[in-house]
Formats: sequence, structure tokens, C-alpha cells
Amino acid sequence: MEQIAQQNLGSADAAFASVVDQLKLNDQGLVPAVAQDVKSGEVLMLAWMNAESIRHTFETGYATYWSRSRNELWKKGETSGHLQKLMDFRVDCDGDTILLLVEQTGAACHTNRKNCFFRAPRDGKLTTLFEPI
Amino acid sequence: MEQIAQQNLGSADAAFASVVDQLKLNDQGLVPAVAQDVKSGEVLMLAWMNAESIRHTFETGYATYWSRSRNELWKKGETSGHLQKLMDFRVDCDGDTILLLVEQTGAACHTNRKNCFFRAPRDGKLTTLFEPI
Repeated sequence: MEQIAQQNLGSADAAFASVVDQLKLNDQGLVPAVAQDVKSGEVLMLAWMNAESIRHTFETGYATYWSRSRNELWKKGETSGHLQKLMDFRVDCDGDTILLLVEQTGAACHTNRKNCFFRAPRDGKLTTLFEPI
Repeated sequence: MEQIAQQNLGSADAAFASVVDQLKLNDQGLVPAVAQDVKSGEVLMLAWMNAESIRHTFETGYATYWSRSRNELWKKGETSGHLQKLMDFRVDCDGDTILLLVEQTGAACHTNRKNCFFRAPRDGKLTTLFEPI
């Protein structure tokens, strides 16, 4: 994966304004965000962002989502320490998906696995592919 | 990226049953699906799947989504030839996101770029990072 210095994004205010203008939020004001490990290329998780969480992400330099279950800002890793340092913030062709390139500290998954995508069909049975770290 | 032979998934019927049982579809019967290039690790696109498109994906061995704009099955690349051969089908911890590992033929993006995530803030302006192939 290419490494992109965080400071290339520009000021938090300008980066936020450039992005939010192009996003098509859903009727709940949300857009799905895929987090990818910038070093390994591993897809870590998918969560949701709103304008407030995007602003918070640029201002802090760490991935902040919107928790749909708790209905509040969710700075990833704030309690676990499993922070995601923002390395790049990509917007897709239609403006309806975000790709965050991050440096992941520890496990991305709440099960303490390195990523959330640890289940797949094997011989017709949904199987756990890897264990917590 | 690890290479996983498609046939390890099991029969289409069994693979479908094992997966759909664990999925939490939204109130429209959909779940977001991230497509990742199995060779390069590149995140290609995000689209949506319903039970019918998941069944079609396992039966054909090629990624098939649900087009929310056309309200119909959408076999990726059916008209463009830019097919996505299914190499693995991962389900996340919460059962609310799918990760498809695919062999992508040609461009994944309808703009003819290799993937859809070609825009990012640079010095505070949303910038195109790469051009069509």
C-alpha cells in the first residue's frame, strides 16, 4: 500500500469542507466507511460516519464513527486503546462510500481479532478463519 | 493476500444457507458488500446485496449485487465485461457487512478507473488521484 502523510490532507476545516460537499448521505445523514490497514492492505471493518464524525476525524487525526446503536460519536479505540490513525480519506465515485486508510493499533474487531471479517463458508459451513490476537 | 480456491466454499446451496442464516439485513433486506481484489488487496468498490443476489453470487461464482437505483439484480460486469470472479465470501462479526474477495477483470469503477476510491483531500481540496485505465 502506498503511504500517504496525514498532513497532505490540508487543514481539518478545509479537508472537511472539500469532502462533505461531495458526499451523498443517506436519509439518516450517514455514509458507510470502510477502514483498511494502510500497511497490510487488510480490510479491517465497516462502520458509519455522519458529518460530525467526519469533522472529528479530520480534527483529531483518528477515525471517529457514528454509533448507530448508541446514537453518539464513537472514536474508535477510545476505551480499548485500539485507535485508528488516519492516513488517508478517500471518497468514491458516487460520493456514497468512504475509504479510510489507517494505522491500526491492536485489534480492529471488538472480538479482539485483527479484523472483523473472520467468517466464511468452508465446505458449506460458516467457519471461523482466525482467532483473537 | 491469501489465495482461496472457490470450491472450498462448498455447494452453492449450502454456502448460501450458511451465510444467509447469520446475516442481519437492513429494513430494505440489504447488506453492504465490500469488494476487494484478492491479488493486490485493493479495495475496489462497495455495493449492496440482498438474499437473491447472494444466492446468484454463489450459483454463478461471480459477484452479483442488488441495484438500488434500478431495483434489480446486477451482475457486476454483465454489460462491460468487468466481471468479479468470487474467490471468497467473508461475513463480519455482526453479520451486517460482507467482504467479497474477487478476481477483477478490467476496471471496477464505472468511470473505468481500477477502483472507485480515486478522490481524496490534498491540501484541503478534493483531488483526483488517478485516471481511467
